[in-house]
Amino acid sequence: MSDYLPSYVQGDWWTPASGATGTAVRDASTGEVITRVSTEGLDLAAALEYARTTGHASLAALTFHQRAVLLKKFALVLTERKDELYAISARTGATKADSWVDIDGGIGVLFSYSGKGRREMPNSRVLVDGPVEPLSKDGSFLGRHVYTTLPGVAVQINAFNFPVWGSLEKFAPAFLAGMPTLVKPATPTGYLAEAMVRILVESDLLPEGSLQLVSGSVPELFENLRLGDLVGFTGSASTAESLRRHPSVQTGGVRFTAETDSINASVLGTDAVAGTPEFDAYVRQLVTEMTTKAGQKCTAIRRAVVPTASADAVIDAVRDRLAAKTVIGDPRAEGVTMGPLASAAQRDEVRRQVEALVDGGGRIVIGSTDAPEVRHADGTTAAAPDGAFVSPVLLRFDDAQAEAVHTVEAFGPVSSLVTYDTIAEASDIVARGGGSLVTSIATHDPAQAVELATRIAPFNGRMLLLDRDDARSSTGHGSPLPGLVHGGPGRAGGGEELGGIRAVKHHMQRTAVQGSPEMLTALTGEWHAGAAARSDDRHPFRKSLAELRIGDQIVSGSREVTLEDIETFAHFTGDTFYAHMDEDAAAANPFFPGRVAHGYLLVSWAAGLFVDPEPGPVLANYGLENLRFITPVSPGDSIRVELTAKQITPRETDEYGEVRWDAVIRNQEEEIVATYDVLTLVTKEPMAA
Amino acid sequence: MSDYLPSYVQGDWWTPASGATGTAVRDASTGEVITRVSTEGLDLAAALEYARTTGHASLAALTFHQRAVLLKKFALVLTERKDELYAISARTGATKADSWVDIDGGIGVLFSYSGKGRREMPNSRVLVDGPVEPLSKDGSFLGRHVYTTLPGVAVQINAFNFPVWGSLEKFAPAFLAGMPTLVKPATPTGYLAEAMVRILVESDLLPEGSLQLVSGSVPELFENLRLGDLVGFTGSASTAESLRRHPSVQTGGVRFTAETDSINASVLGTDAVAGTPEFDAYVRQLVTEMTTKAGQKCTAIRRAVVPTASADAVIDAVRDRLAAKTVIGDPRAEGVTMGPLASAAQRDEVRRQVEALVDGGGRIVIGSTDAPEVRHADGTTAAAPDGAFVSPVLLRFDDAQAEAVHTVEAFGPVSSLVTYDTIAEASDIVARGGGSLVTSIATHDPAQAVELATRIAPFNGRMLLLDRDDARSSTGHGSPLPGLVHGGPGRAGGGEELGGIRAVKHHMQRTAVQGSPEMLTALTGEWHAGAAARSDDRHPFRKSLAELRIGDQIVSGSREVTLEDIETFAHFTGDTFYAHMDEDAAAANPFFPGRVAHGYLLVSWAAGLFVDPEPGPVLANYGLENLRFITPVSPGDSIRVELTAKQITPRETDEYGEVRWDAVIRNQEEEIVATYDVLTLVTKEPMAA
Repeated sequence: MSDYLPSYVQGDWWTPASGATGTAVRDASTGEVITRVSTEGLDLAAALEYARTTGHASLAALTFHQRAVLLKKFALVLTERKDELYAISARTGATKADSWVDIDGGIGVLFSYSGKGRREMPNSRVLVDGPVEPLSKDGSFLGRHVYTTLPGVAVQINAFNFPVWGSLEKFAPAFLAGMPTLVKPATPTGYLAEAMVRILVESDLLPEGSLQLVSGSVPELFENLRLGDLVGFTGSASTAESLRRHPSVQTGGVRFTAETDSINASVLGTDAVAGTPEFDAYVRQLVTEMTTKAGQKCTAIRRAVVPTASADAVIDAVRDRLAAKTVIGDPRAEGVTMGPLASAAQRDEVRRQVEALVDGGGRIVIGSTDAPEVRHADGTTAAAPDGAFVSPVLLRFDDAQAEAVHTVEAFGPVSSLVTYDTIAEASDIVARGGGSLVTSIATHDPAQAVELATRIAPFNGRMLLLDRDDARSSTGHGSPLPGLVHGGPGRAGGGEELGGIRAVKHHMQRTAVQGSPEMLTALTGEWHAGAAARSDDRHPFRKSLAELRIGDQIVSGSREVTLEDIETFAHFTGDTFYAHMDEDAAAANPFFPGRVAHGYLLVSWAAGLFVDPEPGPVLANYGLENLRFITPVSPGDSIRVELTAKQITPRETDEYGEVRWDAVIRNQEEEIVATYDVLTLVTKEPMAA
Repeated sequence: MSDYLPSYVQGDWWTPASGATGTAVRDASTGEVITRVSTEGLDLAAALEYARTTGHASLAALTFHQRAVLLKKFALVLTERKDELYAISARTGATKADSWVDIDGGIGVLFSYSGKGRREMPNSRVLVDGPVEPLSKDGSFLGRHVYTTLPGVAVQINAFNFPVWGSLEKFAPAFLAGMPTLVKPATPTGYLAEAMVRILVESDLLPEGSLQLVSGSVPELFENLRLGDLVGFTGSASTAESLRRHPSVQTGGVRFTAETDSINASVLGTDAVAGTPEFDAYVRQLVTEMTTKAGQKCTAIRRAVVPTASADAVIDAVRDRLAAKTVIGDPRAEGVTMGPLASAAQRDEVRRQVEALVDGGGRIVIGSTDAPEVRHADGTTAAAPDGAFVSPVLLRFDDAQAEAVHTVEAFGPVSSLVTYDTIAEASDIVARGGGSLVTSIATHDPAQAVELATRIAPFNGRMLLLDRDDARSSTGHGSPLPGLVHGGPGRAGGGEELGGIRAVKHHMQRTAVQGSPEMLTALTGEWHAGAAARSDDRHPFRKSLAELRIGDQIVSGSREVTLEDIETFAHFTGDTFYAHMDEDAAAANPFFPGRVAHGYLLVSWAAGLFVDPEPGPVLANYGLENLRFITPVSPGDSIRVELTAKQITPRETDEYGEVRWDAVIRNQEEEIVATYDVLTLVTKEPMAA
């Protein structure tokens, strides 16, 4: 690699002038210098402004779906070149399995957001939130909530442990929301993030200004942020605290979201004694969380909370499994299952924190803080004084109330075991962590799971309920998933990331909008009842997406429902419910005046009234939503239907798209009989003759 | 009134010992002393702990619907005794119209949350958020998000301007969420909040510990807060800033939400020239916002942003309307339309801020800072040196970029006018406010409305689009509504209140939960596909809510669909869409193998397959949701349906409740044909024989 690790700003690669003061970055296993990082001379303010102008403009030119399609393309180019990333990742101390979490996990986030963006968002630029709020009796004044893109830049301040995943899990929702990103990776592993960004830049797929990278420190960052900007921080609670205190966050309106290492717990249920599948799953998971990424995960299990009666059995089982499964060494050596920490500084810090745990009342029951012998890349086994290696350590606290076990974190392969006797005690122990990213509970007893989970939920961003039914398919205590919220209250930072479209919304502003149906239709691109509707001589089903407009409407003729119709329908469908068949019984029902038509008859007839039978742009009715039957229909009543194009969602990668139609069935008195949305697939272009 | 204004803590009324240092509170019009407030000797820590223990326990005993029913009862007792509140409110300087906003507005929030709680929430204690996230291919591992009640106390720190509404708009969602509240009203008008709380206490309806009141200052508040507690602050941006800096907020996990006075704007569109209905509505609204509550509203219009060409016309129209409509005086005098400010201190502050606006480049074009002559309670008109009266003032800034107009707030009947020439300019002016609670836009041009609204939305918590279509029904620029979010980014505090159930969620923790279908069913009270389902010898439609259990299921027999059936249905319904009628045309459609059955035929038949025809506990099918047609059904295929009780919602005030059934139609190959939810009304008790 070059002398200095490059940054990518304002559309160009940038390196400091030679002789700039830089920080050396070293291989985690061997200690050899890989590169240096420095931002001496970098114009950060210009990079931020470039994002706010050029970046915003290029993203604003794209719809949610267009951005989602790009996310998939990014995922594909990274997949194609992921071997390069794996090779670099080994230098950070990551085993192949660790790298898979970081690299394939990061790519997976892109795929996931690409899919969710297209399935769960409209193909537009404004996101509607929640239903219409009627604000006047005459329907002329309505309320609606919309999300619009924050006008600033999304700055990532990332942790060293997952340089690829950490960048991409923040980038994907920001990109989908239309916010340009500036990534600031952690120094010890920033060269892997740089390699990932380089692949994306070389793909030529990135909209101009949508992604920048600053390799090195950004001391003047917050002075240059303002309302509309957002900082997504991952790292230590203390750093989060000092950043959050800046006036631009406190009063300047800069959004600050933090995901910090927390003292996560894993609770073994009282039913899950040795010999049960839950006990085995619990021990397996604990060992995995201790050794994966050498325990350098914000989500790792720091507190094993077990019934007093099971404590010794858990310790023995963990010891056996660690002995059987763990080979410490350079990830480039065959058979190694646990690599070094990311840097010598981290190694020394972990040793210090283990000492603090011992000082706070913990006894080491497995492992030690002595430097382990390790397997080197050449296959030999020896000490490695320049490598950042530590052994897995399990401590036991006899006093579950000891302060240290709930507050001191050794960010390595280190967990502490405490015991409990009642569910209330176990809950209190979990809560003592002061807010966690995740707690897992191993039990096969639903009552126990519900009691524990309900008590501890407000202290957790995520909970995993582990039992024999999901032990094989579980993605594990430590794995944040794109569709689930990642982040937790209190000590865990108080932020939320991921969670599917929830994270996209964190990059947007929610605004209540009040106005006439016409104005809300114009603003949201969604037809609101009361806005103008147009019927012309062409049936709207004869219009392709290229021709159809929001508000295009068909008002059907009316059709009388006879008692004979109701009986015909009842016998044809087999639905001889008494409300349709028995006058006296129907009249005794609180909701019906006597025999009434089937709701499904009305909806079926409505389709008969509005459908245009010949082949045309409407390919299929693929569903129906929010059907409500309002006024019953008695024999002799007539119904008619109004069908209005409500929302049009062309697909980016198909020759058709979705049209949502607002359907209202009324009776001869103009009373509303039923309302619903009809979902159809419609071709983009007119059908060939 | 008594010497000291009482507090209500730990289930009792409390007053300081005589001789305690207190702050005098005065009548806004006459300056006479009404009461004193002091918390000398009050045990705030004990009050908070009482809420966390007794308050939480009594609320946790109630479901969302039970809490919602209580909210309505609170509204009714307040309505019954509201004359008492109106009489007291006049002393704060509020006219009858002002008091209506505060008192009836506050009661309205209770009614609204009572209705929304029952319509939009389950009748349980855990709120589910979003759909199921499948996490494994075999369906054994699922993700779901739940909201659970924060375990602490919701502390209100309120502003002086709306002592009733301000307390109730925060209380209603907290109560619904299950969080006990401690109200700390502002000193100048705290006696009105006290009167409101007293009515609720005297009603004996309040669950123990669910509402406490501290009359007076709480300097040691934040030292006594911890993770799980929440502070809802309304007031000045500078106070919000100093409170937010406390370590319990910064690192202790205490939620802090602020709603601060902001420099709100109202934009007149370029089309809305003098003579248009929009121009008139704009001027009417501006005068209303200046004079209602003597301009002491966080949401009042501080910046009138008008096209350069319309500036003089707006000023003239505002001057005329103010002259015609405004009578300043003691609200107890006949004909008074604008009362005093809340206190002499506020009066002096407003004068200072008007001077700051003048120093910053504003010219007073209407009104002055001289003490106005006012109408007294006895009907005479004279100066009132002890009253907190000021005149309405409109300033004009020739330079729309002047700092002062965007940053200085005179919290009284004071607005400033600036001009613009292009929509981009108008948007920039709005954004210069640094984040606002609300901006209104008066235009009848949808293109203009959309361009402006899209640009300014990220800087606003609420936007009102005013035109001829909604001018009569509009609730006005300054009125937060229970169903719409109140709060805004940046200068407006960055918080969110109201917005219907959104505000309830702000009092709860969102947690991702992973587990087996069985465990998620147990935790959420909602059946998840894959969890155990039970079929016994009784059809589930024969079970009342008292007997029905989540997971009760009927698996129907199967029924073959013939071509004749399809044709019969087509001719009966009139739905002769080619996919059902024309083999070649259907086969040419990308989604169908040839002629297929109507989706509505399948759903109608499914009802015929699962329905139990005799009168029983199931009263009606009132709707259907999330219907998706997955696999087409060809002639010769057979269908059967599985119907499983998914969610049970007994109504608190009816003899029946809602049951949501999970419906899955499968074909003879076990492929899923369609999925949907069937919504029924079911009696609570078995039907009398």
